[in-house]
Amino acid sequence: MTKLEQLKERLAVISDLNGATAVLGWDQQTYMPPGGAAARAEQLATLGRLAHESLISDEIGALLEGASAEATGSDGDSEETCLLRVVRRDYEKACKVPPALVAEIARATSLGMEVWVQARKESNFSLFQPAFQKIVDLQRQLAHCLGFEESPYDALLDQYEPGMRKSELVRIFSELEAGLVPLVQSISERIDRVDDGLLRQTYSEAAQWEFGLEAARCLGYDFQRGRQDKSVHPFTTSFSVNDVRITTRVDQQFLPTALFGTLHECGHALYEQGISQELERSPLASGASLGIHESQSRLWENLVGRSRGFWKFFFPRLQQSFPKNLHDVSLESFYRAINRVEPSLIRVEADEVTYNLHVLLRFNLESALVEGRLALADLPEAWNASMKALLGVTPPDDARGVLQDVHWSNGLIGYFPTYSLGNVLSVQLFERVKAEIPRLAAPSEGGNFTALLDWLRQHIHQHGRKFLPSQLVERATGSALQAAPYLRYLREKYSEIYL
Amino acid sequence: MTKLEQLKERLAVISDLNGATAVLGWDQQTYMPPGGAAARAEQLATLGRLAHESLISDEIGALLEGASAEATGSDGDSEETCLLRVVRRDYEKACKVPPALVAEIARATSLGMEVWVQARKESNFSLFQPAFQKIVDLQRQLAHCLGFEESPYDALLDQYEPGMRKSELVRIFSELEAGLVPLVQSISERIDRVDDGLLRQTYSEAAQWEFGLEAARCLGYDFQRGRQDKSVHPFTTSFSVNDVRITTRVDQQFLPTALFGTLHECGHALYEQGISQELERSPLASGASLGIHESQSRLWENLVGRSRGFWKFFFPRLQQSFPKNLHDVSLESFYRAINRVEPSLIRVEADEVTYNLHVLLRFNLESALVEGRLALADLPEAWNASMKALLGVTPPDDARGVLQDVHWSNGLIGYFPTYSLGNVLSVQLFERVKAEIPRLAAPSEGGNFTALLDWLRQHIHQHGRKFLPSQLVERATGSALQAAPYLRYLREKYSEIYL
Repeated sequence: MTKLEQLKERLAVISDLNGATAVLGWDQQTYMPPGGAAARAEQLATLGRLAHESLISDEIGALLEGASAEATGSDGDSEETCLLRVVRRDYEKACKVPPALVAEIARATSLGMEVWVQARKESNFSLFQPAFQKIVDLQRQLAHCLGFEESPYDALLDQYEPGMRKSELVRIFSELEAGLVPLVQSISERIDRVDDGLLRQTYSEAAQWEFGLEAARCLGYDFQRGRQDKSVHPFTTSFSVNDVRITTRVDQQFLPTALFGTLHECGHALYEQGISQELERSPLASGASLGIHESQSRLWENLVGRSRGFWKFFFPRLQQSFPKNLHDVSLESFYRAINRVEPSLIRVEADEVTYNLHVLLRFNLESALVEGRLALADLPEAWNASMKALLGVTPPDDARGVLQDVHWSNGLIGYFPTYSLGNVLSVQLFERVKAEIPRLAAPSEGGNFTALLDWLRQHIHQHGRKFLPSQLVERATGSALQAAPYLRYLREKYSEIYL
Repeated sequence: MTKLEQLKERLAVISDLNGATAVLGWDQQTYMPPGGAAARAEQLATLGRLAHESLISDEIGALLEGASAEATGSDGDSEETCLLRVVRRDYEKACKVPPALVAEIARATSLGMEVWVQARKESNFSLFQPAFQKIVDLQRQLAHCLGFEESPYDALLDQYEPGMRKSELVRIFSELEAGLVPLVQSISERIDRVDDGLLRQTYSEAAQWEFGLEAARCLGYDFQRGRQDKSVHPFTTSFSVNDVRITTRVDQQFLPTALFGTLHECGHALYEQGISQELERSPLASGASLGIHESQSRLWENLVGRSRGFWKFFFPRLQQSFPKNLHDVSLESFYRAINRVEPSLIRVEADEVTYNLHVLLRFNLESALVEGRLALADLPEAWNASMKALLGVTPPDDARGVLQDVHWSNGLIGYFPTYSLGNVLSVQLFERVKAEIPRLAAPSEGGNFTALLDWLRQHIHQHGRKFLPSQLVERATGSALQAAPYLRYLREKYSEIYL
């Protein structure tokens, strides 16, 4: 066996462990009875530790060296070259972090989650502050272990969005802020032009479930290689290129929850199902970054799923599923209802226009925390002031303000911006698709998404983690990430609805 | 840390890997989409290999020695002593088998399963014969690696029923044969005294499911630490003492399938849920043997579930669940229907009286194969002759004869007898319970099984794998395993119904 083959064999074992971890995580959130929690935590910890130990082993280091020596002169885009680059990156990063720090972070975030749940319940940030301080301190330590050039925030961000820098985020978010704040203000003055009361009737759970499955099937989600189940928080998970599962939750009193939840997760799942079979059981068999992943979920959820063209085909079907609720509703009323904009307190409930301002706020605050420019004691006030400035609303309490998201309690700092990167990229990709395949300007003609999915598979999905996000964007669109198309899309779409 | 503590830590990791394996296996049989099969096989192979490598490692060997040295003088029944004895047994057995043989067995049974499916489809034993010959040869090799005193069959049997010998099985089965063959003959002459047509109506799947859940709850199955799902072949699996799951299948045209399937699996699950919490994450946290396990499933399925006392309470409730099917059926007709006896071709469909003759046949044939007293080419003929002698029926083809069970194709030789050991033991235990708690003579008075379950927990469940099956039986009943109570039970019950 060559060194490369030996390396691949060891990586396949790590991939198996990660796949098993994903199955255990899926079960934990879908079917596990409450009593199973303690043992599951142990099982997940053991699998995680074994995978980590396998990755940072001396054998992997030696095989990487050996395989690289064998590979001199091969094509820079070949699977082999990409694999070696990605594994070296993973290996070096993993080796930089002392096991003691990993363990301390695990303890601190486990406690942090617990304390956060209680603090949010009591809507009292000061209860969470000490645990969060510990988490921030450890994340700063982590950043210093990982290394950075400009800001410790870069090191954290890089875990979720390889190659991205805070300085580039500042540039993108400045453009977004300049475009979005006035747009939100204009819409706020005309807020009652759109009514979404029709979405807030009682919609049968069974019919919602069936419709979601049907829509997912139409989008191209392969149920021979996936399935949908229920969970409290919707997610997509992959155990293999050929077993990619989504979950959703159903709110009988609010139709969009399950409907757009399914389209969103379906977008993630189409990405994972579209990864080349040849990358199976290798570290390349996953998404290139969280931002690229989110570009896929948002593309299907918003650019396809909240478009007129989509509902031209699907609305008659939706009416058939819910005759009592929708028989006298027009396509146009429905289209406007699902695109209602309202500045609100809670990120996860935010519409397309206001969503990125929620993310911007978190980016500003968390980067200030990591760079030591903001003290934790001042965070709630900074949060509320920023909400007022960006969205014109003020949280009445911490639960609906600084304590609303689970991320920070879980040690996820540098994660939020990937949501906005995904939104921005989704439009840039979609514009490119429309330029190349003009008939896709009105997506879902006849409920057939094959051409769109094929384009995405060819330019994004199949490559898995072979390229850095910036390379992938450049290859797919011919340019770097740009906020302008996204802002133009929002302005056009929402001017027509509101102005 | 003491050597014992270090050993326990390593065993806990193996336990985590086995727990993860069980989750992956459960998912495979309940929810996995077809596309997931190939990756799942890899993941299961990797987890199995890691668990095996961890067990046979030099570290475990050294820690076993060290811990044993520390433990001199401690109580023979203590958790510690039992743990060391069980682990030494597991370790020594695992070390005796060369990895190459393990791999060859895995390959041969994987192929064997495939070939068996095809052979059964075509009802042609000769298609299966070469693959089966390989499996038998490898099992004989395995037996020689494991070592034995009297028969190579003992070594194979010991994997499923630690400490059991073929010679003891011969004694028990001789008694069973002598008692059962005439009983079956007498009943066969009066076969039309019982009609089970009422069970063969259309019973709604949803109502069957609900009734099964309710019955399981009444028995004492804890749904906070378990759940029921559907699968093609019903099974019980444990990921932890606090996460023990059952599955069932529902046949809308035959009520007993799901009903008694649930009670049977529930019996297995009550055992696993009843293991002492202190054994969690140790190799002692599972059943003592397959025979002991089957004694629990059969006790709840047959001695409780097919008794008059049980249905005195549950039949009115069953009538409420299926008013159309059962409103004019008497308790007595129902009791007789669920206890109908008929000599038939298929083991898994057999009643209480004929079941053990199916097992006896397999025991006779497989022990003859392993001991080289029977050539594979003669197996179908031997099967058919034996069916005629024991049950008075002759298979019209191999599919309904020698090819009906999956076990042999899977390398499971020495496994079948545990079914009969369980049947025999179930009555011996139940008699003991009734002697100690006279009011349990009529089980389920008021649908409350607490006293029965408590007795089983105290005498069987809590101990997990601490004791050998024979020790456990001796401790619980005061004597060795005996066939007489079982034969007496069958004679009394079925004389009253048939004679």
